[in-house]
Formats: sequence, structure tokens, C-alpha cells
Amino acid sequence: MSLTSSHPFDEALRLVPGADPGTFSGQPHPAYGNMVGPFGGITAAQLLQAVWLHPDRLGEPVALTVNFAAALRDAPFHIQARAARTNRSTQHWVLEMRQVGEDGAETTVITGSAVTAVRRGTWSSADAPRPDVPRPDSIARPEVPRSVRWIERYDMRPITGHMPMRWDGSESSSLTQLWVRDEPPRPLDFASLTALADVFFPRVWLRRAVRTPIGTVSITIYFHAGADELAATGTGYLLGQARSQAFFNGFFDQSAELWNEAGHLVATTHQIVYFKE
Amino acid sequence: MSLTSSHPFDEALRLVPGADPGTFSGQPHPAYGNMVGPFGGITAAQLLQAVWLHPDRLGEPVALTVNFAAALRDAPFHIQARAARTNRSTQHWVLEMRQVGEDGAETTVITGSAVTAVRRGTWSSADAPRPDVPRPDSIARPEVPRSVRWIERYDMRPITGHMPMRWDGSESSSLTQLWVRDEPPRPLDFASLTALADVFFPRVWLRRAVRTPIGTVSITIYFHAGADELAATGTGYLLGQARSQAFFNGFFDQSAELWNEAGHLVATTHQIVYFKE
Repeated sequence: MSLTSSHPFDEALRLVPGADPGTFSGQPHPAYGNMVGPFGGITAAQLLQAVWLHPDRLGEPVALTVNFAAALRDAPFHIQARAARTNRSTQHWVLEMRQVGEDGAETTVITGSAVTAVRRGTWSSADAPRPDVPRPDSIARPEVPRSVRWIERYDMRPITGHMPMRWDGSESSSLTQLWVRDEPPRPLDFASLTALADVFFPRVWLRRAVRTPIGTVSITIYFHAGADELAATGTGYLLGQARSQAFFNGFFDQSAELWNEAGHLVATTHQIVYFKE
Repeated sequence: MSLTSSHPFDEALRLVPGADPGTFSGQPHPAYGNMVGPFGGITAAQLLQAVWLHPDRLGEPVALTVNFAAALRDAPFHIQARAARTNRSTQHWVLEMRQVGEDGAETTVITGSAVTAVRRGTWSSADAPRPDVPRPDSIARPEVPRSVRWIERYDMRPITGHMPMRWDGSESSSLTQLWVRDEPPRPLDFASLTALADVFFPRVWLRRAVRTPIGTVSITIYFHAGADELAATGTGYLLGQARSQAFFNGFFDQSAELWNEAGHLVATTHQIVYFKE
């Protein structure tokens, strides 16, 4: 049995090249549906995939920023990935996703940028050690809410900061720690790591136990591993840790880290999120 | 005496509108020169200024990402700021800076994006409290190295993690804390806060006491204050705190926070930086 051949994540990543280099068409995958439109992590992964598939790509992803300019519809979209600058060992990408809206006109729904690079071996150090937590197989998998499809696509083992059981406005820490991997298991790569960076439920819900409307406005992911390190991670779990630093007049931040089971900090990620009240 | 009328920072921000909306010409300011080309913080501020000056701008900055695609020359440049999407209360900007290279051809040197928004009063909370440190007036101002001009434009009062005195390869923490404000003092605004977000010297130099060549590849700034809160900060100091989480094969990250003297966390910022060996 192949773990990847018919995985819904690989289905979601299927982009069809257009006539112009760097143009692709694709669509949200129902298995990664959110309350409205698709899970933001899958959209970010699709944008990175456009870079990955580009025939002129140099090296591997180092940074990705995705700006969610408008709510995506569950309908086809177009991606353009343009290499704005190619240097000797780094390359700067400008990304855009467009989609036909309800009024029949195609508009920009996502803007973004990426940096790819040919990495060279250097002195390296993980200064943020992985927290000492119980192993994933020692933690029971909680009931998955059936209202949101994409959550079924992740095997999450919460350690601390799980979704509030009662929405009673009681304030608490915004910290979540959990083990997480694709469901069914799938070997880690840059695309799946990108989606995993957005796997944390909204910090403001945890912080306040109030389910206010939210939406990620911009996410940035820094990759601290190469393809070899991701491959070595395989289908193992990642330890994810997320918390907020500031909630101010309609927007809050989230900073998160993702370590593999061997303790390698494979990605750090930050986002700014709209919240309503 | 006006504190701002002839401040070199305001001189650096002078952009001349072009024929097309959202196009501006400008140039690096010698007072903000770095070892090669300008201080990255001033370039980021100039890009945000293009958004600020745009006649169609909606609201105030919430997020800014600047990708340093090529080394800037000390020569004129063009900025284009384009509103890719305008919603009811948020606006998504695509930014590009172009400059004529040594070969006479104009090329992309910076790409970027910004989000502006009309903020509404909501529940707010600063979850990252300002560290308890000595007040700025109790800390002596260190000797400023004369090799780099832009450092003279900041009044820095280091608390911990100052530039290594000996480049002896002795490893230490990557944490820096310092009070900082413009020199001469200038009331805080979004542009100066943007530049201040890049004021920390390279973490890898502190971490290793090795002065390897470095260059910021991408910086993201999240603003957690409105114009009123920045105005209330006035010419006071900001407490800046920066550290790295990962150094891996040629790139390291930096996360930083900036609080005003009253304890408001006005910005959080992240960058990924190339280093040579």
C-alpha cells in the first residue's frame, strides 16, 4: 500500500499548468473544507505548490507569506507564481490567486510571496528546544467535531490548551501544545508542513472562551529544514506550539513552532488574525 | 523648535509621486547608510510610506512584509504600491521597488505586501508583558561604531545582549534587550516604528561571536497599535527584545517585540536572515 497515491492532500495539491509559465488552475478540496470556504493551510500549501512545480524554481522554500485578501469560494481558482528576482542561490517569488466571484468577475483573493534558496551546509543550532511533553501515543485522540471537514484530515493529540469545552468567557492562557500529523499518515514535505503551520484553532477562542468570528489576514512561515530533514521526519508526528502576544482592536497575532519527533525545529510561523469584538 | 521639520528620517521618507497612482520615486538617505547600501529598516519604512501616501489608502497598517531580493545601491529607486484588494474595512497592498543596476537595466530589488485596516474598538490584551528592566535614563549610551552611519540615527541603551566585544567564537544566548528611539528624538509613527523593527544587529553575530556575512531576506511586522497610541508614545523610548529560534544551513530567524515606556506592545516582528557559514 502506498501512503500517498490517493491521499486527499495530494488530490488537493493537483494544479493544472496553464499556457503561460507559472500559471496554474486548481480548486479547493472538499476534504479540507472549513466553515466557509477551504482551510487556510491548504490554500497556502497550494500556493507553495505552484512555486514547487514552476520549471524555473531554484532550491527549496525558506520563507512563505500568504495574505488572505478575500474569502475563497468553493470554486476553481487561478494561481500565478512569478520569479521576480533570481540570484545565484536565492529566488524571490510573487504569488497571486484569483477567483471568479459571485458577480462573475475574476478578482484577487490571495496575494503572497516566497523565497526559495539553494542551502549550503553551515553551523546550525536549534535554540528553541522542543518542550518536554508526553509522547503522542500516550495521548488519547479527542472527539473530532463534525462541523468542519478539514479537522478530520489531521490526527491531533492535544497536550495543553485544547478547544474550550464551555464558551463562558473565562479568560486563560493562549498557549496550545499538541502532537499532529496528516490523517491518514503521509510523509512530511514542504507543502504538508505549510498546511500544518495553520493547524491551530484561533487563539482568541482559547484566550477568552468566546467564539467570536475570526479570519487569518496574513501568515508567514519560515522553513528551518531541507527536503532531506523533512523526508527523515516521514509520517511521524510534529509537536506544535502556538500562542499570542497581542490582541488589539480587531487583530491578534499568533506565533507557533513545529518540531519533529527527533527534536528538529522544522518551521516557525506567525500570523495576524482579524477578530470581531 | 520643531522636532520633525528637518529630521533625517523625514528627509529619507520624501517620495515624489509619479504619473501613475501609487508610483513614487525616492532614494536611499546617506544618514541611514549601512556597510553596503542603506539600512534595511529605512527601506521598509519607505515602502510603507508609499502605501501611507497613496490617495486610495483605507485605514492604518496592520501588517507589512518586505522581501529583500537584491542589494540596494545608493542610487534613486522607484516604488509601486498597488491595492490588489479593497474590502469594507481591510485593504491588501502589493509592493515593489525597482532600481537601475550597474548594467543600466532596471530590475526588482524589493517585493512586499501590506495590509491596512480601519480598526474598531474591541476587547484587547497585551499577553507578552514588557520585561522588567532598568529605565532608559539609568543606562549609559555606549560608544557608537563609526563604520556604519545608520547606527548614529538611533539612541540605543543596551540592557543585555550587546554586540560582542571580542570575536572569539564563544557561544552565548541570542537575546538582546535595549531601549531605543530615534536620534534626534522624533515622535513615533508607523514609518519610524517600521524602521525600529529592524534595529537589532544580526543575532548570529551575538550567538557565535563570529562576524559572518549576513543579509535579511524577508521581514514581517505586525502593528498592535493605532496612530493614536503611537502619537501618545511620542518621543519616548521603546523597549526592544530580539532573539533567534533556529539557525539552519545558511538562514536563521529573528523574533522581536517592541513595547513603549507605558508598557503597550506596539509591534511584533519576525525576519529570516541569510548567513554565510
